[in-house]
Amino acid sequence: MAKMVLIPMLAGLITTPALAQPNSLDHVEPGFWWAGMKNPQLQLMLHGPQIAGYTPSINYPGVKLDGTSKVSNPNYLFLNLQISPVARAGKFNIILRQGNKEIVIPYELKAREKNSAQRPGFGPADVILNIMPDRFANGDTGNDSLPGFTDKLDRADASASRHGGDLKGIRDHLDYIASMGYTMLWPTPVVENNQQSYSYHGYATSDYYKVDARLGNNEEYRQLVAEAKKQGIGVIQDIVLNHIGDGHWWMKDLPSKDWLSHDSEFVPTYHARTTVSDPYASAIDKKNYTQGWFEVHMPDMNQNNPLVANYQIQNTIWWIEYAGLAGIRADTYGYSDPAFLTQWSRRIMQEYPHLTLVGEEWSDNPNLVAHWLRGHKNANGYVSHMPSMMDYPLHDTLRKALVAPENLHSGFATLYESLVNDQLYPQPSAMVLFEGNHDVSRLYSALDEDLDLFRMAVTYVATMPRTPQFYYGTEILMTSTKHRDDGAFRKDFPGGWAGDTVNAFTGAGLNPRQLEAQAFIKKLLNWRKTQTAIHSGKLMHFAPQNGIYVYFRYDQQHKFMVVMNKNTVATELKTQRFDEILPTRATGKDVFTGQDFALAPTLNVPARSVLLLEIH
Amino acid sequence: MAKMVLIPMLAGLITTPALAQPNSLDHVEPGFWWAGMKNPQLQLMLHGPQIAGYTPSINYPGVKLDGTSKVSNPNYLFLNLQISPVARAGKFNIILRQGNKEIVIPYELKAREKNSAQRPGFGPADVILNIMPDRFANGDTGNDSLPGFTDKLDRADASASRHGGDLKGIRDHLDYIASMGYTMLWPTPVVENNQQSYSYHGYATSDYYKVDARLGNNEEYRQLVAEAKKQGIGVIQDIVLNHIGDGHWWMKDLPSKDWLSHDSEFVPTYHARTTVSDPYASAIDKKNYTQGWFEVHMPDMNQNNPLVANYQIQNTIWWIEYAGLAGIRADTYGYSDPAFLTQWSRRIMQEYPHLTLVGEEWSDNPNLVAHWLRGHKNANGYVSHMPSMMDYPLHDTLRKALVAPENLHSGFATLYESLVNDQLYPQPSAMVLFEGNHDVSRLYSALDEDLDLFRMAVTYVATMPRTPQFYYGTEILMTSTKHRDDGAFRKDFPGGWAGDTVNAFTGAGLNPRQLEAQAFIKKLLNWRKTQTAIHSGKLMHFAPQNGIYVYFRYDQQHKFMVVMNKNTVATELKTQRFDEILPTRATGKDVFTGQDFALAPTLNVPARSVLLLEIH
Repeated sequence: MAKMVLIPMLAGLITTPALAQPNSLDHVEPGFWWAGMKNPQLQLMLHGPQIAGYTPSINYPGVKLDGTSKVSNPNYLFLNLQISPVARAGKFNIILRQGNKEIVIPYELKAREKNSAQRPGFGPADVILNIMPDRFANGDTGNDSLPGFTDKLDRADASASRHGGDLKGIRDHLDYIASMGYTMLWPTPVVENNQQSYSYHGYATSDYYKVDARLGNNEEYRQLVAEAKKQGIGVIQDIVLNHIGDGHWWMKDLPSKDWLSHDSEFVPTYHARTTVSDPYASAIDKKNYTQGWFEVHMPDMNQNNPLVANYQIQNTIWWIEYAGLAGIRADTYGYSDPAFLTQWSRRIMQEYPHLTLVGEEWSDNPNLVAHWLRGHKNANGYVSHMPSMMDYPLHDTLRKALVAPENLHSGFATLYESLVNDQLYPQPSAMVLFEGNHDVSRLYSALDEDLDLFRMAVTYVATMPRTPQFYYGTEILMTSTKHRDDGAFRKDFPGGWAGDTVNAFTGAGLNPRQLEAQAFIKKLLNWRKTQTAIHSGKLMHFAPQNGIYVYFRYDQQHKFMVVMNKNTVATELKTQRFDEILPTRATGKDVFTGQDFALAPTLNVPARSVLLLEIH
Repeated sequence: MAKMVLIPMLAGLITTPALAQPNSLDHVEPGFWWAGMKNPQLQLMLHGPQIAGYTPSINYPGVKLDGTSKVSNPNYLFLNLQISPVARAGKFNIILRQGNKEIVIPYELKAREKNSAQRPGFGPADVILNIMPDRFANGDTGNDSLPGFTDKLDRADASASRHGGDLKGIRDHLDYIASMGYTMLWPTPVVENNQQSYSYHGYATSDYYKVDARLGNNEEYRQLVAEAKKQGIGVIQDIVLNHIGDGHWWMKDLPSKDWLSHDSEFVPTYHARTTVSDPYASAIDKKNYTQGWFEVHMPDMNQNNPLVANYQIQNTIWWIEYAGLAGIRADTYGYSDPAFLTQWSRRIMQEYPHLTLVGEEWSDNPNLVAHWLRGHKNANGYVSHMPSMMDYPLHDTLRKALVAPENLHSGFATLYESLVNDQLYPQPSAMVLFEGNHDVSRLYSALDEDLDLFRMAVTYVATMPRTPQFYYGTEILMTSTKHRDDGAFRKDFPGGWAGDTVNAFTGAGLNPRQLEAQAFIKKLLNWRKTQTAIHSGKLMHFAPQNGIYVYFRYDQQHKFMVVMNKNTVATELKTQRFDEILPTRATGKDVFTGQDFALAPTLNVPARSVLLLEIH
């Protein structure tokens, strides 16, 4: 019976089934499902001693057991259910018999939330905030170090250990997040990572269906999403398809040798990411890229195995439906099997046609990134259904351009020229342009702690035809090394821990520059919320000259002019060049200060500044 | 009559027309044409005092005068001829009358060379040599400083002045060029550049129909092409569509204000090359890019003017037909009007469907380069007919990759990854991959004078699925600055001038490294001539590991393995990884030395080496 308890935990529901005898199953996944999903198929994974020897049966109107699938390990049994469109929400038992032994699994088809399938995703009208839950705020010290987890609290260890942040910490500060102007929250993965070390980052799943207890539990996560929604914030779940952690419960009793890649033996990937579309790649390199293990503690899922593929697709759908998500961020996207990714993205978009999925392809080559986009015609015929990808190329160019010297081939010129690649993207504004994330140096440090360049970067990210994304702490100029150092990139947010001398939520202890940056971003993002010209307007930009880059965002109603000036002196910018977009006798009102600027014949652009002007 | 003499000079023919009165025309262009061209239209430009007041007539079977076109300057008259497919080659007079004044222009439709229209172009079976005629060899000192030209011989001035090289110099050394293994010759422009200075490079045309007298004359050029052909070498003419030199004869008597861009006033281009396909470019930037002047001494041709467009198209066709060319290299390609370029490339390819045109788009962005390729689907709908473009992106990557440190994201990795962009090119092997040209630093200098890296670069260029191109003097390790310095990039080829202490043609005075490099390239290129697997075979490459990059070129008959090793020690390379391409029990024979290499289980790769092995 001890193990039996796990089923309701997983399922998030409490039932008191009348069992014929003790149920020896420790996993039934997914633990429940919903009536009225578009795809009538549901495949349940059962795990328990010798379960494959049992014969299942189901008696519930509209639910048909369409056979079973077995693997080499008899402790697994997969039930293939057909759920008719007319099947109603309700509870029923799945009966498993072997001779006179009987196992009863209480199961439920839940009712879907209203308009669940038609839920909107995120897009260019949003601003996404990426946070690392373990490093944002510790709302519940009771879950900092838990029995059953070897990786415990050690805030002195910046790099490998847990710092105690949790879902409660996020929930406690939703008001701050909302007040800053963020409308979407992307926490790094919240599922269980019961790993020896480095469990804090969340990218080494040990249970696909359970929130890590050191962060909270499934129900708390669902409540966080609901609370966030009330504050106008959607939640994007970060998921890892490519690999799991070696602490995953499967690792103690693998379903089959081919559950993991390379027959479940460690073979490292050598990260040859171009092989997915390189016309000359060798078969062994293609295989290695998608089937090699990300690292020794991250076993690679073999998505060529249809049971694995189906498990992962259902898991993603389960979280969307269960938690009420606005989107999915898919980690290490290209490392998964390409055919599987087509199937994964297609099936999710079939269930939720307006949801947003954004993938990570960490490359500065827009051709490689575009390969994964819905509607992009690939030379190799590959079809994807991803609405969005992280815009690593533009992120990278932006940071480099701002610190580079200004000339015909450097600085703003590279930023300007890089937008020619937007012709590759079926919908550029769906691309997620980020100033930073948990894997890169802090923006302020990357810009040599230059607040002027920082303002330009932030304004650019917020005003391009993109879906902007910020990283927690950027607003208070958090710093890091420039070289890769995850500990340095993922410092604790000040104010998130009792006893913090600085509190960024209240502003206490922040220095004037930090307060200025925070106010700047807050103003910018809140202003942005209602600006249709920024969300869906056109862009016109002008080739940079003399250290100044000018662009316009505009629609039928509104027109904004952004002027970035790297010069160390104020510049009288002749505006005749902008005649095709600037109305005659127009003036500009500074969005930040309300100050009016004359626009003709010249605009006085302060030294080292970014101007964001509403044109009247 | 003095001016009259110019007509036969231009035309390259000698006639003794019976003139009713002295012919006051100084230009009739083109000076002759051919019977049997695909396009029946021919537009003649006449220039002479008040010629627009004359009425033309032609009486020749199959040739119809289909009206005239006039410009604001009455000293120009354009005759629109229709040449029927049945018109025969022959001579006739064009009569121009005004009152009792009559001008007689002797004209000729020549017979085309047999199979002229079906002539082959250049391609991956070729190796192109780029030379700068003024800097290669001085075959005729009699033309070094000529009356009527202000820019005269001054070898002490590396940067701006002429050094005396000429067509005779090239012709004298065709045997050397052929012996090195080059099969195509691309001289920088040979047309007249009667400029105050910097006339030596040839990119400031002062007469579109005349070879610069300091290089030779039209007939010598034609003979050079014919001689080269006998040695198995085709000639690619370098042409400039975008601009002329301010020494052009038009500049003294412009046909119209709109003959040049910006109403013939100097407005500089600011080189915003992405505007041609940037979806957000402003109209003023698009216009500036294509209509801005390249520099003050290089007036920009207004190709929106159909008379200009037609003039340039006919001029290109004229040179192909007259000189017997194998191809065209079009300078500063994207700076011309895009609609004109569509028309230019279409009309040339209509006349010569197998000819090769290669354009210069000096960008490391393959998306920008691909924009101009025949068969590339552009997002903006732009259509081009260019069979080839210079492969600046791969050129750039190759040089950087070789000198960069080796790791997952640097060195060979970048070279390997860049080939993913080949999916953009309808025919990658048509792209011209160059180790250097007149505009970039010398390869040996760019590679820090490292002969090992040099061998890798040269082998790579010669064995990729590309059309390889070399620059004169690379074979003897000529050096230069790394930063842009045209004088340094365009030094005189040793042995090209009487009294040179070093003679690269004979080898006299070359140091052992130079002799080694020269022999290496000679061996490589001559070997390459007959290798179908290199010309048209497939490529398979393997992600670089531990400082070693391996690729194979292969067809049904032959298989070659290239191994580049940057390590400073010999490496035992495990070959099991190449099982999909290496036959079992295969051995490799070194193409350079004939030495046999065992391939299994390991291949011993010498330190800092490139191996080119034929697999048996």
